[in-house]
Amino acid sequence: MGSEIPKNSNRMEQKDEEINDEWSVTEEGFDPKRQLAAESIFSLGNGAMGQRANFEESYGGDTFTGSYAAGVYYPDKTKVGWWKIAYPEYYAKVLNAPSWIGIGVEINGEELDLNKVNEVSDFRRELNMKEGFLKRSFEVVLQNQCRIRVNIVRFLSMKREELGAIRYEITPVNKAMKITYKPTVDAGIKNNDAHWDEVFWETQDCGASGDFGFVKARTYKTGFEVLTFMRNSVFLNGKQQALTAEKKIGAKSVSLLYRLDVRPGESCSLVKLGGYLVSLRSNPSAFYQTAAKLTEEAAEAGFEELLAEQKQAWQQIWAHSDIQIKGDPKAQQAVRYNIFQLNQTYTGKHPELNIGPKGFSGEKYGGSTYWDTEAFCFPFYLSSRPPEVARNLLIYRYNHLQKAIENAQKLGFTEGAALYPMVTMNGEECHNEWEITFEEIHRNGAIAYAIYNFVNYTGDENYLAENGLEVLVAISRFWAQRVNWSKLKNQFVILGVTGPNEYENNVNNNFHTNYIARWCLKYTIEQLQKLNENNKTAYDYLLRKTGISGAETELWKRISEQIYLPYSEPLGMYLQQDGFLDKDLKTVAELKATDRPLNQKWSWDRILRSPYIKQADVLQCIYFFENDFTPDVVKKHFDFYEPMTVHESSLSPGLHSILAAHTGQTDKAYELFLRSVRLDLDDYNKELKEGLHITSMALARLCIVEGFAGMKVIDGILHFKSLLPEAWESCSFKMIFRERILEVEVSKNGMEFQLKGEPLDIVLNGEKLRLKESKEKRT
Amino acid sequence: MGSEIPKNSNRMEQKDEEINDEWSVTEEGFDPKRQLAAESIFSLGNGAMGQRANFEESYGGDTFTGSYAAGVYYPDKTKVGWWKIAYPEYYAKVLNAPSWIGIGVEINGEELDLNKVNEVSDFRRELNMKEGFLKRSFEVVLQNQCRIRVNIVRFLSMKREELGAIRYEITPVNKAMKITYKPTVDAGIKNNDAHWDEVFWETQDCGASGDFGFVKARTYKTGFEVLTFMRNSVFLNGKQQALTAEKKIGAKSVSLLYRLDVRPGESCSLVKLGGYLVSLRSNPSAFYQTAAKLTEEAAEAGFEELLAEQKQAWQQIWAHSDIQIKGDPKAQQAVRYNIFQLNQTYTGKHPELNIGPKGFSGEKYGGSTYWDTEAFCFPFYLSSRPPEVARNLLIYRYNHLQKAIENAQKLGFTEGAALYPMVTMNGEECHNEWEITFEEIHRNGAIAYAIYNFVNYTGDENYLAENGLEVLVAISRFWAQRVNWSKLKNQFVILGVTGPNEYENNVNNNFHTNYIARWCLKYTIEQLQKLNENNKTAYDYLLRKTGISGAETELWKRISEQIYLPYSEPLGMYLQQDGFLDKDLKTVAELKATDRPLNQKWSWDRILRSPYIKQADVLQCIYFFENDFTPDVVKKHFDFYEPMTVHESSLSPGLHSILAAHTGQTDKAYELFLRSVRLDLDDYNKELKEGLHITSMALARLCIVEGFAGMKVIDGILHFKSLLPEAWESCSFKMIFRERILEVEVSKNGMEFQLKGEPLDIVLNGEKLRLKESKEKRT
Repeated sequence: MGSEIPKNSNRMEQKDEEINDEWSVTEEGFDPKRQLAAESIFSLGNGAMGQRANFEESYGGDTFTGSYAAGVYYPDKTKVGWWKIAYPEYYAKVLNAPSWIGIGVEINGEELDLNKVNEVSDFRRELNMKEGFLKRSFEVVLQNQCRIRVNIVRFLSMKREELGAIRYEITPVNKAMKITYKPTVDAGIKNNDAHWDEVFWETQDCGASGDFGFVKARTYKTGFEVLTFMRNSVFLNGKQQALTAEKKIGAKSVSLLYRLDVRPGESCSLVKLGGYLVSLRSNPSAFYQTAAKLTEEAAEAGFEELLAEQKQAWQQIWAHSDIQIKGDPKAQQAVRYNIFQLNQTYTGKHPELNIGPKGFSGEKYGGSTYWDTEAFCFPFYLSSRPPEVARNLLIYRYNHLQKAIENAQKLGFTEGAALYPMVTMNGEECHNEWEITFEEIHRNGAIAYAIYNFVNYTGDENYLAENGLEVLVAISRFWAQRVNWSKLKNQFVILGVTGPNEYENNVNNNFHTNYIARWCLKYTIEQLQKLNENNKTAYDYLLRKTGISGAETELWKRISEQIYLPYSEPLGMYLQQDGFLDKDLKTVAELKATDRPLNQKWSWDRILRSPYIKQADVLQCIYFFENDFTPDVVKKHFDFYEPMTVHESSLSPGLHSILAAHTGQTDKAYELFLRSVRLDLDDYNKELKEGLHITSMALARLCIVEGFAGMKVIDGILHFKSLLPEAWESCSFKMIFRERILEVEVSKNGMEFQLKGEPLDIVLNGEKLRLKESKEKRT
Repeated sequence: MGSEIPKNSNRMEQKDEEINDEWSVTEEGFDPKRQLAAESIFSLGNGAMGQRANFEESYGGDTFTGSYAAGVYYPDKTKVGWWKIAYPEYYAKVLNAPSWIGIGVEINGEELDLNKVNEVSDFRRELNMKEGFLKRSFEVVLQNQCRIRVNIVRFLSMKREELGAIRYEITPVNKAMKITYKPTVDAGIKNNDAHWDEVFWETQDCGASGDFGFVKARTYKTGFEVLTFMRNSVFLNGKQQALTAEKKIGAKSVSLLYRLDVRPGESCSLVKLGGYLVSLRSNPSAFYQTAAKLTEEAAEAGFEELLAEQKQAWQQIWAHSDIQIKGDPKAQQAVRYNIFQLNQTYTGKHPELNIGPKGFSGEKYGGSTYWDTEAFCFPFYLSSRPPEVARNLLIYRYNHLQKAIENAQKLGFTEGAALYPMVTMNGEECHNEWEITFEEIHRNGAIAYAIYNFVNYTGDENYLAENGLEVLVAISRFWAQRVNWSKLKNQFVILGVTGPNEYENNVNNNFHTNYIARWCLKYTIEQLQKLNENNKTAYDYLLRKTGISGAETELWKRISEQIYLPYSEPLGMYLQQDGFLDKDLKTVAELKATDRPLNQKWSWDRILRSPYIKQADVLQCIYFFENDFTPDVVKKHFDFYEPMTVHESSLSPGLHSILAAHTGQTDKAYELFLRSVRLDLDDYNKELKEGLHITSMALARLCIVEGFAGMKVIDGILHFKSLLPEAWESCSFKMIFRERILEVEVSKNGMEFQLKGEPLDIVLNGEKLRLKESKEKRT
């Protein structure tokens, strides 16, 4: 179908021998050219903080140092200064935070640096996804001929989210050596992507006491305070040593030096406990006490105990969310990797946090929140994590409602209409291209849809009464003002929008946008009525709070009944937008290889007037509302639009894979699934060094659960359909549904289920079925 | 009609007492708050150089120093770094050049500075438009109690274009004084609007000899070399003094100091001759000799003789281009001002020059060439200056043809298709908003239309054979590739354009664009045929040069016959674009005053989906091709579109005034004429300090000649129609037409003509008439 993305040997594709374990991602052998990409691949996070897989010791080769404390951002002045009004002036971006992982190492006075040693052998990195840690081992000969063996284990505690732990073990091989460890905390960092080369951090305090050291820094403008701390202990052959650290206290960093004499064959290790306290989640006036207590308790528990906790925490996550694929190790590894990274990025404990496009693996896109969260990540967490996790993603937007109303006001909307930002960190709009910022308004629909999705999946109608309806009302108000009456069409129209297909801008009546607007108005009216019937007190409270009137809902009703949807009678096809059929409708197969990717080969005007589609647009709408359409209609639209789709968004192939499965094209579904699922592991786009494509990782799970197992929730009832790809013997996955854990296996013979919890009525391949708890799987 | 632009007292509106002379613009009284605006209003130019009306002596108040050497530009790196491809990386901008006008003055050791003196009285500035000079006079009491009277006359020679002259005369009033003149040339200047705060000039040499001084500087990157020079002489009571100048030679500037003792009542003056030699027009290796010779000759002629030459040069210009209005001094003054400024900006001597939006009065818009030149300025020069002037504007584009072809190639066009840049200095595109840069392609049509306009007006068909057709072929090739076949419409369409109304972006089938594309294809085919019939040699040469084939012109024919024009049958109306009737069609009268100007009050998306029109779009097309439409159709479209037009471009009111006159709405025409003609003199938009709106000044003349006198050239024949506004007794103007000078008077009694040259057949109010030379006017 001409949909291959060009390959290039400079990227970090996993080697065959590196796909040897379904639960691990490994790197075998040291290749400095892979380092930037590997730093992304092996990045760690625990929801509250994260970091790229930078080496602990010094490294003089190419590296992109990245440590991130979740929620800590800076309003970087935008470079673009258009004359058009209502553009944001600042781009809130996640900050490269002070680093706590540094452990300088000196062997007989020579600094260990893999870029400078005589020889590196047996280099191996392993990301253990089952238990949640990163392991690195190698043997080196330094310039001074000292040969040492090094083993490093690092993890960020899922249980104690302010804390990470590193065990850095050195074994001299060829002689006795003087080993110096120099664990450091350092606030002298800069963002790679600062617009004006500004420094974002002001160091306020540096200090050390015993084995404890810290730097306290504050962000300029936003005033976030962050304590970066460490506490170290040194072991010889497993026995803790009572060494007194030499303190080096600089202007922005603190190091503690430990010196030991070690004989060949003896193992010497430094255990460094470190992390952040952040004023968002911890009281700054008690920073020192809190950090001291935290590290003291952790040190008492010991590295092994902390690691055991970590294994347990991940065990719990996998118990709800694991996916097993038989007969396809590449897919198996990749699916687990995607699930692992998403769970590292967002744990759902804090409603002020969200899912940045790069998670904790880079700075691109400012680490901000996009509609990706609602459209793709939300259903991932909804089915694989307890409902609080998805709920906190909704609460994030609920808490930004006032800002969304202010944002709409800047654009001329009134009376409580809300437009959620295209990109945000704190609820304020950060995006700066008019055709996106002002016009890609379907995001408002996706945010409303997530509320529906949550209620439909969990059955938690209280969420509507307590939070959801307020958001729905404000978004409905937006749609009611954003439409206008077309005398020509005798219907309401929505002019001047950009749909999810960003390769068309400022079009009229984008089907996706009009449809989701219509749905949103109907759903809001319906839920208001339901609340009025079922919970008068809550309804009256909502009325008072929002000031909504009967005339207003009457107007919504009229709009939802009379909104225009572009449709071609002769084709029997919904049209992406009013002018779509005026285009020269060619397929991707008709493009020359040299034309692709279009966004690097064609000028913008040429892309815009071409029929080529960046990512699902009409089809994304059909995916959202698949039940509104007959299977024939779904297939007809898939067969019309997918061949024109260039999939130049990481979010595109996976979504199409789901619909391909639903329309019985499992080969196509499988091909698109593979493109989606191994995007980062195989570095398709040669941009891995910048970080991972975190939000699109959600699609790996969705492709299997919603695609190949046909999972849908219709009116609160789980439906399944077996759509297994040829290549697989079977696949199975776990999911949480309404206080039950369900394990589902799809094989060539059909589907089997194992339920934990109360009996559950489901629909399998169109037939009703009651599942009960048992130790056996059943069909 | 709600078309008032908000007023504000901070702007520099001409006071009533300043409109006291039809041939002058004056400023009475010194007001530092008006200085920035006055520097624009009183700016001088002679086509080859120009400068804002900065004071010669020191001035510590608000000032924006601006001196410009025509054609000297710098490629300033753009600030916008979008990811979209084919955006230009540099914005070529006219440079603030070294200054030669400075004359420091010390009175008894105290520096004269109007910002620091004890008292200023009798301050007066006068721009004498009839004779082309600027006069300034004032009396001051310095802090040292010296009272002096100062008279300054300055002009830039129209005859000797490298040269300007200043006579700075001081008369001590209350006592004898020591006067020191310190004439300076200075290359230490920076552009106000440099994107990256870079310095654009490198000073190469500074020196002085006798009364002659110079700085030689070179622009970085573009390597233009400019010699800025001066030669001074000092007079006491009109008698030249033999003083030896003290030389101060700095790193970037040179001053010569002249000291005199002057008694009260004696007049002492410095005459400074200065200017530029530019490597574009003068050989740098002979710079010193050329400048020495030039200034020596000028000094020999003397200030009075140079001024007499200046008067004569302007007399010649006015002889072709003057306009007289009886009964409306404000309009009279403004019309002459506009004519004066355009003739200062562009003299048509050099085909490498063009007309920047601010002329020599500021730096905004980079001093570059826009389509304003062809659409508005071209007809101005065509009817008021000898044909070489307009011809050189065509040659400018002819010389840029190869660059226009390269520009189109960057956007994916092939085989010699040309897209002229939206903004340029050297033929390369400088503009940086995709919706304009890539999509405002009607500019190509305007450039083709100017060729037609020239040939139709002058009868010079040779121009087509020698230059014009090459450009027409390349532009036609662009259209032929830019259309696509719409299966839906069964016609050719042009998708994704921005019309002249920049308040709509990326629309489909903009009527203006489609119409001018169709016309261009037809006209090119027609002229190719004509050339084939009349001049086979030239035709064959053109065929060889362009490689044009029969198949190609066949395709052009088919496109021109089958191109879609958006039209509403029920309304009987051509539509601005495909989606226009889906808009909520309100008039400007329905807007609140607080909504305006829209571009400062509304977000861009709101403007885009509104019906409001920035400047003539359909109507500009109808203006270009008025003969294609019946008067009824013209009026119907005017009455439909004008009420939705906010006129937020300086080019808008004047164009509408012409059509209002043609449709018999002379009151409306007059109102719009006034808005256009006094835009700068009354500083409507409060932006006068940034410079003048030079290109829109062309409309003042066009409103009268084409509007109120209904002048058109149809198939080479001059047509007139009397459409005099109520407010006027009469108006008359001069024009050049096919080697004749014609004076036309429109009065309440009809029209009278006075012809110099061969007899001329014209059509007056629809009736044929033969004019012959006579000393009397005749009807």
